[in-house]
Amino acid sequence: MSLTLNAQIDKIEPPFWYAGMQNPELQILFYGKDISQYQVTVSNGIKITNVKRTENSNYIFVTIDTKKVAASDFVFTFKNNNKETFTQKYSLRQRRENSAQRKSFDSSDMMYLLMPDRFANGNRNNDSENATQEKYNRESPGGRHGGDIEGIIKNLDYIAELGATTIWSTPLCEDNDARHSYHTYGQSDVYKIDPRFGTNADYVRLAAEMHKRDMKLVMDYVTNHWGIEHWMMKDLPTKEWINQFDTYTQTNHKRTVIHDTNAAEIDKKVAIDGWFVPSMPDLNLKNPLTLKYLIQNAIWWIEYADLDGFRVDTYNYSDPKGIAKWTKSITDEYPNFNIVGEVWMQSQAQMAYWQKDSKIAEIQNYNSYLPSVMDFTLYEATSKAFSEDEGTWDKGVVKMYDNFTNDFLYPNINNMLIFVENHDTNRFNQTYGNDIRKYKMAMTLMATVRGIPQLYYGSEIGMAGDKNKGDADIRQDFPGGWEGDQNNAFIKEGRTPGQSDYFNFTSKLFNWRKTKAAVHFGKMTHYIPENNIYVYFRYNKDETVMVLMNNSNETKTVNTHRFKENIKDFKTGKDVISELTFDVTNEIIIEPKSVLILELK
Amino acid sequence: MSLTLNAQIDKIEPPFWYAGMQNPELQILFYGKDISQYQVTVSNGIKITNVKRTENSNYIFVTIDTKKVAASDFVFTFKNNNKETFTQKYSLRQRRENSAQRKSFDSSDMMYLLMPDRFANGNRNNDSENATQEKYNRESPGGRHGGDIEGIIKNLDYIAELGATTIWSTPLCEDNDARHSYHTYGQSDVYKIDPRFGTNADYVRLAAEMHKRDMKLVMDYVTNHWGIEHWMMKDLPTKEWINQFDTYTQTNHKRTVIHDTNAAEIDKKVAIDGWFVPSMPDLNLKNPLTLKYLIQNAIWWIEYADLDGFRVDTYNYSDPKGIAKWTKSITDEYPNFNIVGEVWMQSQAQMAYWQKDSKIAEIQNYNSYLPSVMDFTLYEATSKAFSEDEGTWDKGVVKMYDNFTNDFLYPNINNMLIFVENHDTNRFNQTYGNDIRKYKMAMTLMATVRGIPQLYYGSEIGMAGDKNKGDADIRQDFPGGWEGDQNNAFIKEGRTPGQSDYFNFTSKLFNWRKTKAAVHFGKMTHYIPENNIYVYFRYNKDETVMVLMNNSNETKTVNTHRFKENIKDFKTGKDVISELTFDVTNEIIIEPKSVLILELK
Repeated sequence: MSLTLNAQIDKIEPPFWYAGMQNPELQILFYGKDISQYQVTVSNGIKITNVKRTENSNYIFVTIDTKKVAASDFVFTFKNNNKETFTQKYSLRQRRENSAQRKSFDSSDMMYLLMPDRFANGNRNNDSENATQEKYNRESPGGRHGGDIEGIIKNLDYIAELGATTIWSTPLCEDNDARHSYHTYGQSDVYKIDPRFGTNADYVRLAAEMHKRDMKLVMDYVTNHWGIEHWMMKDLPTKEWINQFDTYTQTNHKRTVIHDTNAAEIDKKVAIDGWFVPSMPDLNLKNPLTLKYLIQNAIWWIEYADLDGFRVDTYNYSDPKGIAKWTKSITDEYPNFNIVGEVWMQSQAQMAYWQKDSKIAEIQNYNSYLPSVMDFTLYEATSKAFSEDEGTWDKGVVKMYDNFTNDFLYPNINNMLIFVENHDTNRFNQTYGNDIRKYKMAMTLMATVRGIPQLYYGSEIGMAGDKNKGDADIRQDFPGGWEGDQNNAFIKEGRTPGQSDYFNFTSKLFNWRKTKAAVHFGKMTHYIPENNIYVYFRYNKDETVMVLMNNSNETKTVNTHRFKENIKDFKTGKDVISELTFDVTNEIIIEPKSVLILELK
Repeated sequence: MSLTLNAQIDKIEPPFWYAGMQNPELQILFYGKDISQYQVTVSNGIKITNVKRTENSNYIFVTIDTKKVAASDFVFTFKNNNKETFTQKYSLRQRRENSAQRKSFDSSDMMYLLMPDRFANGNRNNDSENATQEKYNRESPGGRHGGDIEGIIKNLDYIAELGATTIWSTPLCEDNDARHSYHTYGQSDVYKIDPRFGTNADYVRLAAEMHKRDMKLVMDYVTNHWGIEHWMMKDLPTKEWINQFDTYTQTNHKRTVIHDTNAAEIDKKVAIDGWFVPSMPDLNLKNPLTLKYLIQNAIWWIEYADLDGFRVDTYNYSDPKGIAKWTKSITDEYPNFNIVGEVWMQSQAQMAYWQKDSKIAEIQNYNSYLPSVMDFTLYEATSKAFSEDEGTWDKGVVKMYDNFTNDFLYPNINNMLIFVENHDTNRFNQTYGNDIRKYKMAMTLMATVRGIPQLYYGSEIGMAGDKNKGDADIRQDFPGGWEGDQNNAFIKEGRTPGQSDYFNFTSKLFNWRKTKAAVHFGKMTHYIPENNIYVYFRYNKDETVMVLMNNSNETKTVNTHRFKENIKDFKTGKDVISELTFDVTNEIIIEPKSVLILELK
């Protein structure tokens, strides 16, 4: 980022680029007072393929062809009618080896979701910064609490010990809102880490420290909107950069209009172009300039920080064609790169619509190219099922069973992010009054069904939080992340007995999962629940795992003859958690509100 | 049916057949003591293509090729090793003109669902019959009440006056169960009308009387099971004729196993092969003999009674491949013939799976060939929405709106049967405590959205009935159908003022609908509900109908500017029911819990 700008240029984005990209077209934004009056040329025989001027004379978008251009520095020359001239250096950098073929996260991983401002304050010197408006105030639930990248790095060993292999951090780029900037979904500079979290170099160091530990870093990317404080919002390149109405218009949140053949045009427009909140200008992905800008920004971060994946916020609040182009452009550059989109819909058919190569979207000739979607219907099921003590036609564990009966709708069932909570929902331990038995059932489900399990920071030590009290309550500080915290749950000795119970179970479960190929990519057979007991198997040719979940309030004896097609000639099963061995040939006794994970032999 | 049987033959099915069918293969079942010991030949140069004997020597299945055989009588000769010989006459009859190209019901129709035992007793002489076990007992809610075909015929003018154009009567073939035979879903002879309903000739007369009035007759066909009293159950042709287990096994009702890629084999077997109830042997459609028998029986009724359509009971409780072959065989013979299947699933994707040429079923290379499915999710929506006075994200009229957002999942959205109740559900007027305002909203919905509206007998005069009290309560006698009934709702003078309110509204609504092409086959545009008000339009190039439904408890003023894309330059709308004219250019005032159907001009 050590770009030296000519006095007549205020911004160049991307600030540099990489040689040898699959798509050789590079669109460079130059921002400076009346810069559009200049004619642009470039050195080294590089070809300018397009120069785009908008109604704002302070912008010029110059597209060059980087094909066959080696990593090098070169020079743009700007000349106007008055023969005034200035130059600007620009660089194509060398890519890391095999950058395009980088691996990504998949169902062999466990993803730890954290909010950096609330996780750990590793550097007290950046709690408040001159460059950003909102200052440190840990007393305010919705204020900045000082957590940062250094705090994550310092606790990577803790996260690894838990059994997580991937971190999804909520956004880290600068959010200069005056209030509630801690969540950072209203970004003011998408090429710069927020100084209160650290520097761009710190972010690169986080990725490197994670890679040392065989861990993967997933960036939370926001395609739908920026923050009102984004530098470009003070001086829009073009009216079409963002979606605008005559008066402020909020999205109606009805993303069903996208596939609804009966939808009114006005409803579609408001859903897609309406703003999320007044402080978040809605980006116009129908505008090719904006779209290209966002594609390049995403690719830049992958190359620059050596990323392992994206999580995309409010994925289907953007223009459907635009967001598909954005997604495809990234996976065209990185064929193995995984991207999971937040697609919060009401049914599996509606969610499956959004996964790459969906047969359902094909009905409308649509393809999002999005590799991974979030299993929100499973989340809904788990947020109710464990307090339904009587299993009926549609209550209790049958809620989970029913969810999996629709797996065929998804083009890639292993590439689903599965979770019982995240930073936008009630906390699981709140919903269930910190009943650790229910936590154990839910985590076992996450660890043993298809998909990529995601755990929300703090739940592994029993943290609760009530969404009804506001978002801050579900985003409390992790105990031990701050100097002087009485309770330090990051270390064994610092945990309360209750926290240890949560942590030890979670760590044992997900460390076990790390090597279980049958759970990562194996087949599943499940049985229609009876009496609120759910039994399913995960298996491949080498191993078979049997899961029994008793969601009733009574000790039950489960006759195993019904499961013969999976139990086959196995005689015993060793429970992963208790390490007790069970005879599986006849019947298994299982405690109320408990679960067994039996490795069959 | 005037078949003369040789003394050595007890049954021949089909009893006769038709010349010139598209599929020339005819499988004739001969049943008689040790008949399988005989060799069979046939006269007139007709070719026998297959003779199938089973483990039961009392059956022989003879397949002949009827191609190029004109309508005629011919003779089968049976000869055994002892040179004993006997003969049996058989006939191919002439088909009606254009029989194969017969029209069927579609979304221009309104379907009246009635249960013949409970509708009207037109012939007191057949209330009890020697040939059938259960005798007349109108005092018993679940007993035989004496309703019959003659009762339907006598009241056809009433049904026509209501605005119905099609009748779906629950099954009429003989059900010789000793108890609860009135519903007739456990049939004991599928080639014979139950004598308590009338004769086969009476059924043909019903169809003819309906055709005189331009009305259509839909038979309720049961492919999944027969009654335990079926003559064949006393002496099964083969063990494989029905699905059998070591001990009685009831279906688990989880038809999701059919598409569930995680389902256990045992669960699939129990779902498909398990019995509905102990008195209903489950037909094995995997057995080609059984399947062919059922196909021919269905076709025989179409030809014999001149039918206009089928409703198929428990459609997806049968072997999926078998039921698809059954369906395709019928529509191969009659390309325009409509068949609506009872496919009671949990989501639109699951229901759309079962409609012909479904893209969702195509994921699994399945095609049911079933032209029409029932909109059970719309039924679920209407059974809750009208008591949700506050419209929220998922409550009130938004429940209906949400249903229609998924229309794209169905291959043929006009060919959906829509309803707010049927003979298996709580009665609508019960659910809503006979609040006629809610009835009017619901019927208007049925009359104006896409699909084929189905009305359940008696609701049009305000009948209620509580499913929790048992099926008999939702299947009460229609007042006026029995000699001596104090209240005769079949005639204007006989109706109470309350019944008249219901009837007059319903009749006006559905008679209006009869000629409204925009409602039958037009496009729909609907708007996201606001404040529990749902506004939608049905239109074609000639006409536009605007529907406003206020499901709140307050009088509302609806600003119409939001609907500009449909209101266009129309100035006024005339309400179909009140015949009042409204100015639609600015705002419309609408009463609480009410609906307007405006024909725009």
